[in-house]
Amino acid sequence: MSFQNPVFIPGPTNIPREILQACSMPTIDHRSALFGKILHPCLENVRKILKSRSAHVFIFPSTGTGGWETAISNTLSPGDKVLAARNGMFSHRWIDMCQRHKLEVEIVEAPWGTGIPADRYEEILTADKGHEIKAVLATHNETATGVRSDIAAVRRALDAAGHPALLLVDGVSSIGSMDFRFDEWGVDIAVAGSQKGFMLPPGLAILGFSDRAMEATRTARLPRTFFDVADMVKGYAANAYPYTPAVGLMNGLKLSTEMLLAEGLENVFARHARIAEGVRAAVGGWGMSLCAASPDLYSDTVSAIRTPEGFNATTLVTHAAETYGVAFGVGLGEVAGKVFRIGHLGSLTDVMALSGIATAEMCMADLGLDVKLGSGVAAAQEYYRAHPAALRKEAA
Amino acid sequence: MSFQNPVFIPGPTNIPREILQACSMPTIDHRSALFGKILHPCLENVRKILKSRSAHVFIFPSTGTGGWETAISNTLSPGDKVLAARNGMFSHRWIDMCQRHKLEVEIVEAPWGTGIPADRYEEILTADKGHEIKAVLATHNETATGVRSDIAAVRRALDAAGHPALLLVDGVSSIGSMDFRFDEWGVDIAVAGSQKGFMLPPGLAILGFSDRAMEATRTARLPRTFFDVADMVKGYAANAYPYTPAVGLMNGLKLSTEMLLAEGLENVFARHARIAEGVRAAVGGWGMSLCAASPDLYSDTVSAIRTPEGFNATTLVTHAAETYGVAFGVGLGEVAGKVFRIGHLGSLTDVMALSGIATAEMCMADLGLDVKLGSGVAAAQEYYRAHPAALRKEAA
Amino acid sequence: MSFQNPVFIPGPTNIPREILQACSMPTIDHRSALFGKILHPCLENVRKILKSRSAHVFIFPSTGTGGWETAISNTLSPGDKVLAARNGMFSHRWIDMCQRHKLEVEIVEAPWGTGIPADRYEEILTADKGHEIKAVLATHNETATGVRSDIAAVRRALDAAGHPALLLVDGVSSIGSMDFRFDEWGVDIAVAGSQKGFMLPPGLAILGFSDRAMEATRTARLPRTFFDVADMVKGYAANAYPYTPAVGLMNGLKLSTEMLLAEGLENVFARHARIAEGVRAAVGGWGMSLCAASPDLYSDTVSAIRTPEGFNATTLVTHAAETYGVAFGVGLGEVAGKVFRIGHLGSLTDVMALSGIATAEMCMADLGLDVKLGSGVAAAQEYYRAHPAALRKEAA
Amino acid sequence: MSFQNPVFIPGPTNIPREILQACSMPTIDHRSALFGKILHPCLENVRKILKSRSAHVFIFPSTGTGGWETAISNTLSPGDKVLAARNGMFSHRWIDMCQRHKLEVEIVEAPWGTGIPADRYEEILTADKGHEIKAVLATHNETATGVRSDIAAVRRALDAAGHPALLLVDGVSSIGSMDFRFDEWGVDIAVAGSQKGFMLPPGLAILGFSDRAMEATRTARLPRTFFDVADMVKGYAANAYPYTPAVGLMNGLKLSTEMLLAEGLENVFARHARIAEGVRAAVGGWGMSLCAASPDLYSDTVSAIRTPEGFNATTLVTHAAETYGVAFGVGLGEVAGKVFRIGHLGSLTDVMALSGIATAEMCMADLGLDVKLGSGVAAAQEYYRAHPAALRKEAA
Repeated sequence: MSFQNPVFIPGPTNIPREILQACSMPTIDHRSALFGKILHPCLENVRKILKSRSAHVFIFPSTGTGGWETAISNTLSPGDKVLAARNGMFSHRWIDMCQRHKLEVEIVEAPWGTGIPADRYEEILTADKGHEIKAVLATHNETATGVRSDIAAVRRALDAAGHPALLLVDGVSSIGSMDFRFDEWGVDIAVAGSQKGFMLPPGLAILGFSDRAMEATRTARLPRTFFDVADMVKGYAANAYPYTPAVGLMNGLKLSTEMLLAEGLENVFARHARIAEGVRAAVGGWGMSLCAASPDLYSDTVSAIRTPEGFNATTLVTHAAETYGVAFGVGLGEVAGKVFRIGHLGSLTDVMALSGIATAEMCMADLGLDVKLGSGVAAAQEYYRAHPAALRKEAA
Repeated sequence: MSFQNPVFIPGPTNIPREILQACSMPTIDHRSALFGKILHPCLENVRKILKSRSAHVFIFPSTGTGGWETAISNTLSPGDKVLAARNGMFSHRWIDMCQRHKLEVEIVEAPWGTGIPADRYEEILTADKGHEIKAVLATHNETATGVRSDIAAVRRALDAAGHPALLLVDGVSSIGSMDFRFDEWGVDIAVAGSQKGFMLPPGLAILGFSDRAMEATRTARLPRTFFDVADMVKGYAANAYPYTPAVGLMNGLKLSTEMLLAEGLENVFARHARIAEGVRAAVGGWGMSLCAASPDLYSDTVSAIRTPEGFNATTLVTHAAETYGVAFGVGLGEVAGKVFRIGHLGSLTDVMALSGIATAEMCMADLGLDVKLGSGVAAAQEYYRAHPAALRKEAA
Repeated sequence: MSFQNPVFIPGPTNIPREILQACSMPTIDHRSALFGKILHPCLENVRKILKSRSAHVFIFPSTGTGGWETAISNTLSPGDKVLAARNGMFSHRWIDMCQRHKLEVEIVEAPWGTGIPADRYEEILTADKGHEIKAVLATHNETATGVRSDIAAVRRALDAAGHPALLLVDGVSSIGSMDFRFDEWGVDIAVAGSQKGFMLPPGLAILGFSDRAMEATRTARLPRTFFDVADMVKGYAANAYPYTPAVGLMNGLKLSTEMLLAEGLENVFARHARIAEGVRAAVGGWGMSLCAASPDLYSDTVSAIRTPEGFNATTLVTHAAETYGVAFGVGLGEVAGKVFRIGHLGSLTDVMALSGIATAEMCMADLGLDVKLGSGVAAAQEYYRAHPAALRKEAA
Repeated sequence: MSFQNPVFIPGPTNIPREILQACSMPTIDHRSALFGKILHPCLENVRKILKSRSAHVFIFPSTGTGGWETAISNTLSPGDKVLAARNGMFSHRWIDMCQRHKLEVEIVEAPWGTGIPADRYEEILTADKGHEIKAVLATHNETATGVRSDIAAVRRALDAAGHPALLLVDGVSSIGSMDFRFDEWGVDIAVAGSQKGFMLPPGLAILGFSDRAMEATRTARLPRTFFDVADMVKGYAANAYPYTPAVGLMNGLKLSTEMLLAEGLENVFARHARIAEGVRAAVGGWGMSLCAASPDLYSDTVSAIRTPEGFNATTLVTHAAETYGVAFGVGLGEVAGKVFRIGHLGSLTDVMALSGIATAEMCMADLGLDVKLGSGVAAAQEYYRAHPAALRKEAA
């Protein structure tokens, strides 16, 4: 009787049965030609999802965090300077990783709920005449606050400053769900994970490297072996890996990327936006507001919802799990206790979203918040009815 | 992106992953001792779920309809007279089967939405001094109208008339979900299927026979081979079958019956009643009424909801499937177009039920019915909040 | 650590993972359009596998035995005369079923190990000037003896006699594995099951009816409801069923028939012949002989192997199960104790077959038979090496 | 028709269906109490399999190679000296990783096919009066050569020298299949992976740390974040992880360790030894020899088989894959082309092993080697018959 309700954490997401079945494959020889039939479509499809024509794609048996480490350890050397904004828990963690790897981080503090201040980036980069900053870090979607930053603006800041630093982007909770333009934005490294937009179980770090990033790997002196992309390049050329790949997950990735591309990326993004908009309508119906400071920052994969002063938002998450068997996300770091999060990415329908909204409502009422039962549901219903899903046939 | 929403048809039900996995087993030799380790627990557990100490349990690779045929063909002879009430599509179909098997059926017509008129049964049985009626048919739960009949009352009618007819009960959509008392009610044959309360895929007819029913098989002259219980008895004694059993489904039945018994039958029934009560609260919230004529008849596995005059309820079912990817049940026979049905049996949570209720609301609004969005959801939320689920830990 | 070895029973067969996964699908509404997308390809693909352009295909949640009952109960009336040869356990059982359904069976006894004596059929049919014989029964592949009969010869016997009787063929253990020509042979009803050549779990009876067989259903008076093809015809026209279909198994059937047709029927038959020939080479290597009386009778799906006088072949089957965890088939009926059977149909490779052969060898040695270890294996290896499998790429 | 034959690579191994199903679970909230019910049994069971009472167990979404990196990066600092023997490809790779992490490696070269020369270790450690050597590396089972080294002897060397260096052991292809005594041998870090003895898909690095190893993490200055065990310690205390864990694989690990412990570790080891001994008997039957120099070095998880001079062993592996759909392991590094490898670890029966042996025989014959068909099979059959498997019941 367990495991029946959908999850509403901002990843790992609900996994379509077809993908679970593709992951659940018998053992094959990962040094045989058969593996190449899994590997190469994965690389090619990920490249398309990144909207890149030439990115070098790497897939590690790891997670998004391992992807971050891959990004910095392959391109930087101890003592190198990097520029990063801290506007949420995940940007904070990446900064922390850099510091533990002996990088010097120029931190731009930004209020949680705001995006990357590209103007501050530009000022700092312009001031860095000696080009000591080797890399600029950007978290595309702050999963902790439900904030989507403008990566194109970060690229413009670099260009305006005429600065050659690499642009490393954490797209863990955006890629495959929201528009991401590797080539157009001049991204040098994009980091993703299997368990978000790719609708897979956790266990893969997925990265794209630009030619410039590949060039940087030649001189980067941070120690690396497991995460060394040069070993991967050698392996891929022979349909192989420097060590045992996570074949099952990669077989799932092959299918999930095929599914995303068959649906059409713009349709995938529109689907996420539609589901998200319904959730945001519900938040409005409750008379509450998002952590994200303004509509242009709203994330289409996760909404962090501010609860009234004096209310510990974490109790709502615990109550939902214990009383209704539903998983929401807690607030992290600075916004711990102040927000709860509804993840609405990956494999989700309006019907499923409504059950999450209805559950959140019950929890709020149970815990004494002044919320009218059905108010959020009705607002979301209105939105979903007025904006019918584009893809009817599959569900019929 | 398909198959994500729960189904709300009154069977087949949503299948728990554990059960699907148990069904999905590799081939074993069904003539080996290993098969006995699946067969015998199934027989024993089904007997417990029937609340019987001595019922002879039979499991056929078939469906509930095959179960009906098993019941009549093993105990009756051409020309035999049977007594049956017609108060819905499934009782109608069983009557039709009897007639096609050359039985003479004394039909008690009862308005659809009402239960078996036990008083009429008593009159007829009392009048049948010659005991020409060999069997009394009773549909415990009319899936077409959402009506639960009183089988104990049918037994009382038989007893009051001092009539020896066999009592054959269709419990396809009740057994495993609602209280069923084989021994206490003096049931002679109970018929169930895998795809309702047992939460399995369709493909099994599950029956219990009393000693009297077994006795009747000796003289019954309706032809039968596939459905012959005598062949089954012989087979079971050797851990075997007269033909190839549906091993995978039976392995699933072993698990599902273990799950039901571990939860506790009374808890299972209470769980169904609670989910059903929430759905009925929603119906009230919409200002609508059930097909079932009075609360004592309300089924805890399916609700047939009357829609306003002039509205074709079937369009709602079609619209839900095409627009929201959600399956409800249409009205059948006399109530076609007049009702739609929400199945709420098997593996279902309040959270899932709310998504079905919210979807029905959207459909009604889309199709121009005067229903306030959120009204049914709020009524159900109230009920579920006030009556928290008994089993918290599993879902947590 | 269990369930690892392949099975070598003549069905159910080893199930490819893809097919198990296709069967293991979530619940859909079997009254929705979605079901039609499963049903109709199944019907069409089965028709192709029968090598028929116009057969009416029916799929019941049942087994091959249910298929036999469907065949006779839809086309015959109590007291009708049928002609049948008894040359093994399965032809015997079908005859028994006919008798239990009050048909008069003219039985042609044939030694177990021989095929249907078409010349005797011709004599009897020619003598039946009044055309009292309404149907001729033929078991294409006697699973008990590993004997394939010549159905074309049976058709020639009917034609030579100018006899209008229906030709009902049990193809349970041949269809999908060995050549079967519904149209060319003038078959009126073909009976198959899911768990043999279709590589599915048990649970489906699969039938093809000719136009003449359909015509006969109009006047046939054997009682039937569950197995009534007329109800099926009505249901199929609406993408539906007279009762709940076994949707998961049918989804598996859709895939398995697609796989068979994609491989090419002649390739499928050649694959079975090749695996079988290797097993037969092993039997020769052991200095043993088959139950089948002559090479033209050899079945490509199962070999019944005669063991020396004084040896109880059933002990070998028990020993293999208990000591090596491998399932072979016992002898049945007249040849019980005299033969053991190696099933070699469905999803099987030469590599798997060699493990079965090696196991049989160990068992024979363990039980004191005069068999040289490796002798059968070597003979099979020679054959497989000299006749490499046609389809290399899939396995590579 | 694919994926049917067992694999005979020395990992990933054949995966039992139960374990694949346990891995294939729906998404849960990895920050909920539910995750703790997976995590803690995993930690405890792994500890038992390591034969340790107090090892600190860590599970990373990574592979054995990541496990090596975890071992060195958490306990050592740039410039530290380590002692390591190179007697195969995997010890070579670990040495290479150390060098890339700026460690100074004192390499003891040993012929491929021999074990770790503990006497040389003792000489070097005794000579290292200043205790500059901070860690001793030992590969318990060289997967490339099929050589099991004596870790107890390495411990004795350390003790004889009175040397405080940490003992880091690669047990990737031994732990869970061959005896490993963490406490008794004074191991400081043991490294394992999911895809060998644990019978899981690849994707987990599994480690045990001694208290001394944990102590060393405080001062170790190699950079690390993803592989930092201190972050893991903090996470585990809250049922959590520093990032998203590979929940499905861990659920599989919970089951696989339960299966191993239920079978009994000594039984598991005996099972591997028995299967291995049969393979070695086959090698003798072919008149060939192992790469491992002497019987005390024979690995029970993989056999590297020397082929005659002038024969390229890699062609055998390619031929087996292309012609028979069977995967063996190629020779690596110094023994490339000179050996092929049969993996015989994890979920394997004698029956399956015989199919691998039979296939290797066919390949040798196909490629012109002077091997008598059936010769290896017969030798293995003799051994398996004479040494019946201990666990009959499961397989029966």
